[in-house]
Amino acid sequence: MKRVGIVGARGYTGRELIRILLKHPAVRLTYLAATLDDPQPISRIFPEFVGQTDLACEKFTLTRAVKQCDLVFLALPHTVSLSVVPKLMARRLKVIDLSADYRIRNCGTYERWYHKAHTDLLNLKRSVYGLPELYRERIKKAVLVANPGCYPTAAILGCAPVLAAGCVDPKDIVIDAKSGVSGAGKKATLDYSLAELEGNFKGYKFAAHQHAPEIDQELTKLAASKVGVVFCPHLLPVSRGIFETIYLRMTKNMSLEKVHDLYRKFYKGETFVRVKPLGESPELKHVNQTNYCDIGLAMDASRRLLIVASAEDNLIKGASGQAVQNMNLMIGSPETTALL
Amino acid sequence: MKRVGIVGARGYTGRELIRILLKHPAVRLTYLAATLDDPQPISRIFPEFVGQTDLACEKFTLTRAVKQCDLVFLALPHTVSLSVVPKLMARRLKVIDLSADYRIRNCGTYERWYHKAHTDLLNLKRSVYGLPELYRERIKKAVLVANPGCYPTAAILGCAPVLAAGCVDPKDIVIDAKSGVSGAGKKATLDYSLAELEGNFKGYKFAAHQHAPEIDQELTKLAASKVGVVFCPHLLPVSRGIFETIYLRMTKNMSLEKVHDLYRKFYKGETFVRVKPLGESPELKHVNQTNYCDIGLAMDASRRLLIVASAEDNLIKGASGQAVQNMNLMIGSPETTALL
Amino acid sequence: MKRVGIVGARGYTGRELIRILLKHPAVRLTYLAATLDDPQPISRIFPEFVGQTDLACEKFTLTRAVKQCDLVFLALPHTVSLSVVPKLMARRLKVIDLSADYRIRNCGTYERWYHKAHTDLLNLKRSVYGLPELYRERIKKAVLVANPGCYPTAAILGCAPVLAAGCVDPKDIVIDAKSGVSGAGKKATLDYSLAELEGNFKGYKFAAHQHAPEIDQELTKLAASKVGVVFCPHLLPVSRGIFETIYLRMTKNMSLEKVHDLYRKFYKGETFVRVKPLGESPELKHVNQTNYCDIGLAMDASRRLLIVASAEDNLIKGASGQAVQNMNLMIGSPETTALL
Amino acid sequence: MKRVGIVGARGYTGRELIRILLKHPAVRLTYLAATLDDPQPISRIFPEFVGQTDLACEKFTLTRAVKQCDLVFLALPHTVSLSVVPKLMARRLKVIDLSADYRIRNCGTYERWYHKAHTDLLNLKRSVYGLPELYRERIKKAVLVANPGCYPTAAILGCAPVLAAGCVDPKDIVIDAKSGVSGAGKKATLDYSLAELEGNFKGYKFAAHQHAPEIDQELTKLAASKVGVVFCPHLLPVSRGIFETIYLRMTKNMSLEKVHDLYRKFYKGETFVRVKPLGESPELKHVNQTNYCDIGLAMDASRRLLIVASAEDNLIKGASGQAVQNMNLMIGSPETTALL
Repeated sequence: MKRVGIVGARGYTGRELIRILLKHPAVRLTYLAATLDDPQPISRIFPEFVGQTDLACEKFTLTRAVKQCDLVFLALPHTVSLSVVPKLMARRLKVIDLSADYRIRNCGTYERWYHKAHTDLLNLKRSVYGLPELYRERIKKAVLVANPGCYPTAAILGCAPVLAAGCVDPKDIVIDAKSGVSGAGKKATLDYSLAELEGNFKGYKFAAHQHAPEIDQELTKLAASKVGVVFCPHLLPVSRGIFETIYLRMTKNMSLEKVHDLYRKFYKGETFVRVKPLGESPELKHVNQTNYCDIGLAMDASRRLLIVASAEDNLIKGASGQAVQNMNLMIGSPETTALL
Repeated sequence: MKRVGIVGARGYTGRELIRILLKHPAVRLTYLAATLDDPQPISRIFPEFVGQTDLACEKFTLTRAVKQCDLVFLALPHTVSLSVVPKLMARRLKVIDLSADYRIRNCGTYERWYHKAHTDLLNLKRSVYGLPELYRERIKKAVLVANPGCYPTAAILGCAPVLAAGCVDPKDIVIDAKSGVSGAGKKATLDYSLAELEGNFKGYKFAAHQHAPEIDQELTKLAASKVGVVFCPHLLPVSRGIFETIYLRMTKNMSLEKVHDLYRKFYKGETFVRVKPLGESPELKHVNQTNYCDIGLAMDASRRLLIVASAEDNLIKGASGQAVQNMNLMIGSPETTALL
Repeated sequence: MKRVGIVGARGYTGRELIRILLKHPAVRLTYLAATLDDPQPISRIFPEFVGQTDLACEKFTLTRAVKQCDLVFLALPHTVSLSVVPKLMARRLKVIDLSADYRIRNCGTYERWYHKAHTDLLNLKRSVYGLPELYRERIKKAVLVANPGCYPTAAILGCAPVLAAGCVDPKDIVIDAKSGVSGAGKKATLDYSLAELEGNFKGYKFAAHQHAPEIDQELTKLAASKVGVVFCPHLLPVSRGIFETIYLRMTKNMSLEKVHDLYRKFYKGETFVRVKPLGESPELKHVNQTNYCDIGLAMDASRRLLIVASAEDNLIKGASGQAVQNMNLMIGSPETTALL
Repeated sequence: MKRVGIVGARGYTGRELIRILLKHPAVRLTYLAATLDDPQPISRIFPEFVGQTDLACEKFTLTRAVKQCDLVFLALPHTVSLSVVPKLMARRLKVIDLSADYRIRNCGTYERWYHKAHTDLLNLKRSVYGLPELYRERIKKAVLVANPGCYPTAAILGCAPVLAAGCVDPKDIVIDAKSGVSGAGKKATLDYSLAELEGNFKGYKFAAHQHAPEIDQELTKLAASKVGVVFCPHLLPVSRGIFETIYLRMTKNMSLEKVHDLYRKFYKGETFVRVKPLGESPELKHVNQTNYCDIGLAMDASRRLLIVASAEDNLIKGASGQAVQNMNLMIGSPETTALL
């Protein structure tokens, strides 16, 4: 029985981690930390947990974390993990970091997008990008996992088969992404008020979102050549879920059926990626509250444009579910434990 | 052409006032004020007004208000109007105040619920409660109108016919009220985030809401005897609209049809109160974006319980629309101008 | 390992039963039936089950049901169960019926509300009303469980402590109920279109809903005297969840704190009923997707009116979750299995 | 005072036409027809019109239409207009047809997408495509206007300035479109039930939607060379509104600021097209319930990809508002009458 903790337990990804870990037969949730003056039961913060756990949430201290945990999830804002990870690593705890801090390989890129110099190159080198469908074996041996961003997860899983097979132009990728509001975290801002968002839809940060370099980096690895991605996110008037429509230019003369086969083979044996039958679109309702990423395919034959639709729950496969999937690999539990 | 201004133009009721007044043929919107350091076009604050008005919104000053306006709407938070109204009145402007500050006749009650002593008894006495269906003639002559609260408007219109006719027990009134989130104003709070409210519903301030004493006061006037009201508000996961289900105990042996006749007669000639045919419920979608209050009736004959359903748009008939209806009466325009 | 089947697997309660039963360690889902010409994989009907089950859904035949199952859930429309239950019972299968057909003791009442004569008095007598918090011991021995309606579950759990203790007037109960649209079943009707319901709210069947007699019957049992209930349902613009605000008149001079104690004691040891701390309202988001019923209390002391707020997921505690809770009792599994 | 009628008054575009025309000072709404056995007041069908009009809705007959109207709006399903238009034209009524029947110039294309041969070539030739921003002068003289589809309106207005200026590649246009459910009409289908759509999002008819050939035809006219468009529509979980994100490849080396200037100039003087300041996205809430189409621009400079976001209310600028705009031109009223 592994003892696991969550630092940053009060946000939406923290809540999903708690929900999933309480069902996990091989781990015990032993430690919850957040920026609080006094400890309080997590069931005061999230009343849905009344009757399920009496665990208190307290101010983070290294001593307590080390004493209580074998493995720690960090559900902290970007740039904050940078100061916590080295301390935990020094004490030999395993860490799964849900922030962007250990995802970006290039420190210049990190600094440009997150406005802070990277101060922990040692651990950055040891970290493994936690997308199990691509890096399973490395994750098994990892001591520090950089859990992928929500937008990048859907984008990478959506593009991987054709990029790896070299049958699309890596220089010409358009990602039209749509996300529910929980993707922005648990925030008291007018912008996310239901009074502002009911029935609304808008774009934001077109070709300027901080997830773009992460997508760029990972797709470049897959394509084994520098990719060109235009990433345009939009805000859906829903609580959760990400849907990305990805436009890729075929460089080979392949039928949609052939491409579909390619995807099916690429994800054969993968529990959490489901390739839809041709003619069907993924839907948020089929993936929300689950760890699945559903992928649908279409093609405009005359223009040889492949259209990939990729959908996931931003808080589960896009964050906490994937983090637990990574944990399962790291602790030797079956990969799907607590996730089905 | 009357020149009118809005102080507190940046909130939801301010926005609705602007929208309505821009369509009004007999007034000119000349002045917008809000707590801003520097003036900015109202169309920067509300982009829906681009192309419709170039008016700037500026910091409130008495000099400017007096210079620009014949009549001013105050869309200010409760207790703030108290310090503005006396100044405007002293300069002989007509005022329609959308706050609670001049609604409550009893200063002790006001202080108990709004935590501030009333400091303007002079104008409190001159103020007229702005419910045109009940106080039309007095409003026509008013210089200061206390525009009713959103919950009270639906409650009073829903109860008036039977209370005035003395056929229900005034001591035993239950109001189960449901409101959209804009009723709480334009606020940056986590509680109203779509991520928190999608698919949600809850009660709040049961038997303890600050609109209860206003309802109490007005129903007592109607019944000509002290009423007993239990008021239980709930939060609907919608942007706008109020729906109140009101339970009244019949003291006379009247059929539902008779009660229905009573309501139809009471509101005969009233453009903005529509009594539904028996068997039909009001619906928010029929009143939202309008100045109507729709009223439906049902009865549990064996227990002689009359059930009144009263629905309105909290921002229109419950606030800004009614304010313009009052203005129309005060300036001699047809009552429905800009409201149909 | 018990073999269980679902007849009427294609509706919303069928879907929830499948979802829950797939996680149940002590049963195997072996049979799914619906009105289909040709069998088809349930994962074609509900794509969320792709990768989770390959079970086909087929036309109901008694032979197949008897051959495949030890216990059968009937998720059929009202009046249809009447023709299926006797056949299954005759073949000694255990049955949990989610329709109203075996809930109403009085055949005249049943006929009046469901427009069909009851044709199976034998089994009606053997059936047990499946509310585990009240009838646990009888359910354990039952062969036929009449699973409670969604509205009645929230109403009965909300009223039981004070009715059983005799401290409220049983003749004067008002239930203001609000339900999400899935309560009406999986139907292709314009009324439930998002285009009609976005931002909407309305009442329906005031004092005339078919669940009223069921509530009446069960509250009368609890009060040990004929009750008088006014039941007014409303349609919330949400997919799932029921919230009932119940107004009860205290006959004893008890403080709210005392009543709160009474509720806490009454539900002590009950996993699925959570009495909220005073000052807090239940919320749909805390109970949706769970088998909990959350109950909150308030009081208008001057009028001695007790206000009970009772919330549940209509498809889980109000239907399929409760059905599995009953099954657990019937097959000797821990009562909470697959429900936490 | 022109007398106008609506055939197909019972759908969503019919309702919006009624709402707008009731406010129009220069026309009188004299005739409403729909597939009804017996006439009934339109306010029975749409209770929001109680108190605003007593007009009855009746079965269509040519005699009545001719007798009552100078101009008729047809809000009929595709292919149905084909049999009504020739009769009305023969009687010299002016017609604004909201269906696709007179939009597609090429009869083969029409037949391929609407599965019906075109049977009225005479009037097809006389019809004018009713996009006032592009064809104002021709509309003024038209006797038959083919009112544009909702998706095409947003697409054409979004692309027109750069296509007409020849600064993008006409062969490489991707339109990622998102629409609210009212775009599908007033239909009793499970697919549009709130229980199915709450929190959902999905794609449909990727590269296979019947509006694609209309977009193709109109963009080809603008570009003066055959365009290549990939059109991918998605269903938003909202009642109304269309948002299209359009990806265009620059063929000239122009800065975003230059392109922005181009759009501003192109739409100078156009009341109903608003080009957003750089850095701002259109939002459905700014255009819903209005006749505006808002357009925002962004660019991925390194890949010279222009990103245009175009938003409108599908029922207003995408249908009934634009139809009234056309009517205003045809009858010589100021173009914005009843639309601001």
